[in-house]
Parts: sequence; C-alpha cells; structure tokens
Amino acid sequence: MKSDRTLFDVNRRAMLSALAALPALPMLLPGSAQAQSGTGTLPLAPVAPVPIADPLPAWNDTASKNAIFNFVERVTRQSSPDFVPEGDRIATFDNDGTLWGEQPMCFQLLFALDRVKVLAPKDSEWKTEEPFASLLKGDLKGALAGGEPAIFKLVVATHSGMTVDEFNDIARDWLATARHPITKRLYTEMVYQPMLELLAYLRANAFKTFIVSGGGIDFIRIFSERVYGIPTQQVVGSSGKTKFELQNGKWVLTRLPEVDFIKDGPGKPAGINAHIGRCPIAAFGNSDGDMQMLQYTTSGSGARFGLIVHHTDAEREWAYDRTSSIGKLDKALDAAPAAG
Amino acid sequence: MKSDRTLFDVNRRAMLSALAALPALPMLLPGSAQAQSGTGTLPLAPVAPVPIADPLPAWNDTASKNAIFNFVERVTRQSSPDFVPEGDRIATFDNDGTLWGEQPMCFQLLFALDRVKVLAPKDSEWKTEEPFASLLKGDLKGALAGGEPAIFKLVVATHSGMTVDEFNDIARDWLATARHPITKRLYTEMVYQPMLELLAYLRANAFKTFIVSGGGIDFIRIFSERVYGIPTQQVVGSSGKTKFELQNGKWVLTRLPEVDFIKDGPGKPAGINAHIGRCPIAAFGNSDGDMQMLQYTTSGSGARFGLIVHHTDAEREWAYDRTSSIGKLDKALDAAPAAG
Repeated sequence: MKSDRTLFDVNRRAMLSALAALPALPMLLPGSAQAQSGTGTLPLAPVAPVPIADPLPAWNDTASKNAIFNFVERVTRQSSPDFVPEGDRIATFDNDGTLWGEQPMCFQLLFALDRVKVLAPKDSEWKTEEPFASLLKGDLKGALAGGEPAIFKLVVATHSGMTVDEFNDIARDWLATARHPITKRLYTEMVYQPMLELLAYLRANAFKTFIVSGGGIDFIRIFSERVYGIPTQQVVGSSGKTKFELQNGKWVLTRLPEVDFIKDGPGKPAGINAHIGRCPIAAFGNSDGDMQMLQYTTSGSGARFGLIVHHTDAEREWAYDRTSSIGKLDKALDAAPAAG
Repeated sequence: MKSDRTLFDVNRRAMLSALAALPALPMLLPGSAQAQSGTGTLPLAPVAPVPIADPLPAWNDTASKNAIFNFVERVTRQSSPDFVPEGDRIATFDNDGTLWGEQPMCFQLLFALDRVKVLAPKDSEWKTEEPFASLLKGDLKGALAGGEPAIFKLVVATHSGMTVDEFNDIARDWLATARHPITKRLYTEMVYQPMLELLAYLRANAFKTFIVSGGGIDFIRIFSERVYGIPTQQVVGSSGKTKFELQNGKWVLTRLPEVDFIKDGPGKPAGINAHIGRCPIAAFGNSDGDMQMLQYTTSGSGARFGLIVHHTDAEREWAYDRTSSIGKLDKALDAAPAAG
C-alpha cells in the first residue's frame, strides 16, 4: 500500500496544462493554482520531467505516480507475469475525501441541512424538536451536538418518505444550484483533478472503475456518471430500505426511514462482494473507513495496488488526518507502510 | 407485457442452424431436436420464413418474436420518439426457469443436497437430525417434507461457514462435474438456446443485460459470464451476510448463516434499485416471483417491454404453470394481458 503525503503537492504548471486541456473537468480547490497565478497564460513547456503524453499531468512526478504507472504496466502487458485479464481489472474508489471534498463536513449532510430548512414550514413540530429546532434557529453547532443520533434524524427526515424518483429529482436540483459555504462553488466542481485523471487513465487501460462509499448510494449516483464517468450500476454505497407499492396507478419504490446497509469500514469489503462479486486489484481511499477495503484489495494474490489520499495542502484545500472528525485518517496511515 | 405460450414451440430446423452456428452454446432440453432427429445433417435451408440474418433463429416466427424486434427498433433508432440512450438500455432476466431449467427442483437445491451427502461424515449429528437424517437415508421426500424451514437448514449447512472464495471453488467444482438427475447433462448445458440468442441480440443493440434472481448470487456468478456472457457485477441475487476477518494472515470474507436479502417478488424491484440504480426498460421472467419486476419495468414511462417464458413443452422440457410448486406461474399469467 502506498502512503502518499504529496498527492496534492501538485505541479502547478502541469495542472494548468490539464486545466487547459480539460476545460469540462474543473479543478476544485479554494485558491487553486489558476486563481493564485492570476493568469492562465503561463508558458506550457514543462519544467518537471512530464512526458508530453503523460496521462496524469496534474500529478507531481513522485514515487506514487511512478508506482501507479508501474502497476498498470504490470497488469496490462500480455507477457507480464502479473497480467490480469480485462474483466478482472476492477478498481474501487472511496468518494468523500477521495474523489471530491468532505470539508467542513460531508456534502450530503449539507444537503440534509438545506432540506430541513426547505421542509420546515411543513412540519411545525420541528420548532421544538432537536436537532431541528437548533438548526432552524441558525445554531448548527447545537444541532450537531447530538452526534450520530442527531445526524441520523436529520438524514431520515430528508431522505425518506418519498419515491426513489422524487428523491433523485430533489437531490439533482440541489446539486445543480447549491454552493459550498466556503468556496462558493457547485459541489460537483469540488472534485479532485488528479483523481479524475486517474479514473480516465485506468479506464483507458480497460479497468472498470467503481465507487464504494459510506455515503448514500442514490445521492452519488445522481452525478457519478456525468462528473466521474461512473454509471449508476458501478456505484456501491450506503442505502436505506425501500418499499414496492402502487401509487396513483403506477408501481414505484418508496424510501423507508430504515437503514439497509452501511458501506463503511468492514462494510466496504462486504459491499464489494455483494455488488461486484470479485475482489478489486486496486483501491483508493483517504480515511480509516477505507482501511478494510484497502486490506481486502491488497490481501489478494497477484499484483495489487492500494493508495491513500492524504490531505496535506491547507493552502489550496484542507489539511487533516489523525484528529479530524471528518475523514479521520489514523489507523490506516499507520497500517499503510506495513502493507507496502 | 407479452405472454408467450409458444416460446418453446421452437422451429426445429432453425434450432439446428443455431446449434451448428453456436457449438459453444449447447441447447438444453431432454430429447432435444438434435437428439430426436438422430442426425445433425438436415438441410439448413430454412422452411419457415426466417431471414438469413435473423438474430433469433431458435425462435418461432410468432407475435412475441416480432414484438421483440419492434421494441428494440423503437428504442435504438435515433429518430424514434421512443429512442433510449445506450446507458439506459437495461434489460433484466430472471435465471431459474427463464435462462436455465428449474425442474424437478431449483438446481441450487440439488447442489445443497449433494453437498449434504459429501459433508455427512464430518457431522455425525446429522444422522439423527432432520432434514439431514431422511436425506442421508435416501428419503428425499421426507427430507423436504419440512418445507421452507427444512430447505433453509439444508442451504445454511452447505452455504455458510467457509470463505467466499472457498464456497465459489466448491460450487465451481460441482457445476463442472454434477449431472442433472433426469437429463444426465451438466447443469450449465441446461440453458435455453432462445434466451441465449435474446441476450446476445440485446447486447448487440447496446443493452446491458442483468440477471435478477431469487437464487443465490454467488452460485449464479460462477457460471454467468462463461455461459450467459453476464459478468459478476451484473448479477443481482439473494445473498447471505458475510464477515470480514483475518484468517491465517490474510483478510477474507466468510459466509455467515444469516440471510441478508431475498431478491424474489417485491425484492426484485428493490434489488434492481440497489444494484443497478435505474429502472430496466425490458424484463424477462417466468413465474409469480417475477411479477413485481415486470410491473416495475413496465410501469415506467416510454417504451417498455416485459415477457413471460411460459413452459408448455412437456415433450422436450417440462410443462408447468399455475399449480407447480416450483416456478409457479399464476397471478402473473393473469396480469400479463392487462399490462399489454
């Protein structure tokens, strides 16, 4: 397993090239290289030894980058002893903190908070019931003081009681318009350019790319195809139970206020087995919740690859690891060197 | 929804052509056309009006066949008002009784019965404990007299307590060697040639084909890619819970004796939503357990297609429907004409 402390120490000129070449794939990051340079017209001749056809231009020329190239070469070259047939080239990615941001809190929770405000006029009991009461008074800290049970109540209140299609429309509208509280960007713009390049590079080498997230499966599916090129059936995530019922003469699935499956920690290998039915040969995460997925992936025989995105760039994003309440990276950071 | 009483009233010469063209895709069926004709050298000139490039040569030239062609044309022609983009061309198939046989009982249960006999020397309590005791005495009827709880015990005893990989190896070995009690064929040879053609035809038209089965997901995944061309991640089925644990220094998933999810009846739409994340535009089943999947599929807007395989050919396979204990087709047969 490759611990990568320098993933976001990105070569800025290389990143600018990437931005120029891929205008449809915006780089996230508050105070990004483009914003800081104040110009998009820096000379594009590479300073670092980045080959012209580099499929990962936003990555610094580090050991991590070379390890990715070496791994892909080993599993795709027909004559390699580690050759893996196309159908078995499965790569799994965590979402929050690995493919897009997760600060100051998981974006789906920000969606839930916004929804409570929208729905509040319909539910007068919320004025006196926690965590709704605090939230509606503008006291976010008070609302979240109740910890997981409070968060669960907020999520249930905003994620159930409608059909699957209705929920998808609500979340789609929110993602199309809501802005991140700090960066003021659309959430779907807060995705990591280096990881978009990695997804595309792996797919160009006949990998199938999957998301395996502790976040809500339906929420991610709304934008995964458009933003990451990952279709709904390749998204594995936490889910609630549904009920099949006749509504106005049409058969629909409605969302029940019951958790079906949490795909975090040991739930990730279990979810991978349930959805994909084979063990990935490469996995990418950023927190302790991804440790079991990385262990499962790198335990298999043959060439395996695990990578941890370590958030160290406070200037352009956020720096956090061992003591963070969101995306805590502690045990996995210790385990990474031992697993190679 | 299309009720098809004539699916297995197959044009025999067309079927022979198919067999000749597709030697790797054996036709099932006790007393099949090839066996009955006593020769594989009948002239191949078609008698029925089957066009040379007919993608469904094993299908009789019926309204059902034409309905399939019409549907595929409507959703794939760019200028059609019912055009469906490639990513949304999802087709779901039941397995038992739709893609392969299910008589005299579900093949996975036959696997469980065989496994009990193999494992019996390791568990002396089975000599006195039902349903094992009856089964080991050769009294199958007595063993199954306990109904669902007895079957559940047989399945749990043979499907849990090992790692996922170990189970897959056991089931793979059985499928490679075990023979059907009546036809004496390998089970993977007891697949329906018309349905193999249909799978290939839909995929040639950029459909993604999925299995959605009440049967065990892992059991089907072992042969689905080789036999049906459906990779593991496109198989949805009933599953047991798993546990992620360290075993001899390696991280593995072990199979627990607990049901996780039954993908039958209303579990089929729920499973489709969980695994695929979008509603199919075409669904294929053969029993009341498929009714909700057909309702869900045909309830959506735009062009939708549902088909029921109705087993009416006692000569070459089995004829069964309303009163069958296996693959009962009763309510769905009544509902089909109403749903069009």
